[in-house]
Amino acid sequence: MTLLARIERLEAESAIRRLMADYCHGFDKREWDRFASVWQDGAVWAIVDAGLEFVGVPAIVAQGKSMWIEHGMLQSHHHNANAVIDVDLGAAVANGMTDVHVNVQLADRSWQRQIATYVDRYERRDGVWKMVRREASGTAHWTIPASENDRQA
Amino acid sequence: MTLLARIERLEAESAIRRLMADYCHGFDKREWDRFASVWQDGAVWAIVDAGLEFVGVPAIVAQGKSMWIEHGMLQSHHHNANAVIDVDLGAAVANGMTDVHVNVQLADRSWQRQIATYVDRYERRDGVWKMVRREASGTAHWTIPASENDRQA
Amino acid sequence: MTLLARIERLEAESAIRRLMADYCHGFDKREWDRFASVWQDGAVWAIVDAGLEFVGVPAIVAQGKSMWIEHGMLQSHHHNANAVIDVDLGAAVANGMTDVHVNVQLADRSWQRQIATYVDRYERRDGVWKMVRREASGTAHWTIPASENDRQA
Repeated sequence: MTLLARIERLEAESAIRRLMADYCHGFDKREWDRFASVWQDGAVWAIVDAGLEFVGVPAIVAQGKSMWIEHGMLQSHHHNANAVIDVDLGAAVANGMTDVHVNVQLADRSWQRQIATYVDRYERRDGVWKMVRREASGTAHWTIPASENDRQA
Repeated sequence: MTLLARIERLEAESAIRRLMADYCHGFDKREWDRFASVWQDGAVWAIVDAGLEFVGVPAIVAQGKSMWIEHGMLQSHHHNANAVIDVDLGAAVANGMTDVHVNVQLADRSWQRQIATYVDRYERRDGVWKMVRREASGTAHWTIPASENDRQA
Repeated sequence: MTLLARIERLEAESAIRRLMADYCHGFDKREWDRFASVWQDGAVWAIVDAGLEFVGVPAIVAQGKSMWIEHGMLQSHHHNANAVIDVDLGAAVANGMTDVHVNVQLADRSWQRQIATYVDRYERRDGVWKMVRREASGTAHWTIPASENDRQA
């Protein structure tokens, strides 16, 4: 591999880590432009356990917004860990995987924790890496009883 | 951008990820030299929700130490996630943001969890990247009831 | 440092982050080839608090598998945070450290959380970075009471 290709691989990895992070910040902080910027045109967001797929950036963003409303969420926190990224520079595609630890607070102030894994596909188009497919598979979910502290918050 | 500038941007990102991690290790493991090494001279640590600011490395380190004493902490664990870093090489400055999941054990052995976001500013001085400002905004806090296991620990 | 050496240092850091992640994915998803691929021949896995050491890849993988069986684990989730990596290119060795947040579900469906720190040593052999020593030191452990939600799951 040339020096240039080696730098490009490191830059691709950096760009993909950033997308993984912006997905979380965008959803949790309801910065919907940030959330939208993660996805290539025509991208697919698959919620595997629910058998759901959302196709295209407008549908994906609408689904993100509706999750806040549907669950009456007061807070949402997605924390990524364990990113693995495999870049194919020649084909301008990459595979990614990351675990995520989710803490959400529902309308009744109770907290729910979930742990899931994202399996991703990325493409570089016009020089820009974005996500073309994210499959979310939840494997764990449980509820933390609200403490007195929370109930007063 | 030249190859050199592209490498420098990747190195800056690497250095800033390291500072984000050293902040946590330094505070949690009470390695105060490590904690101090994260900050440029004159840096500001702002605890936004409390309306507090600590200015300069000696004041920041003193505040870190006093948090352990004031709360009678037995353990502290800060886990970062979702780093986003924007480097301006020409100006030798960078913006960063990371979420953090905090677990602390208080003097009565009870555990408290918090989730917060750090919004950071970095500067490169004499070739070395360090933090010049960190704003910590806590958005979630709740208490985990101590288990029998904990009470016996 | 030459441009090449600077790229090699960034690549080493990238490779080591990947090993840290593959350890978690391999153990948690019981992808034992992935778990095995993290370690150099003759590597040592030290569980400091228990005074245990496992030497060599076959012994390490056997121990990983036996932990699932011994504890009757239904799920395991290791989430890394705060990676710090120091690379010595000339000597082809590196030191690493990362915190980890562990959530495991036992046979009775109860969940246990642990927080630990890994202190690692890496070597590059035949151009490939792998782990030669991991010391796991657990500093926190507690139990989350199973919720109704979990009991029905």
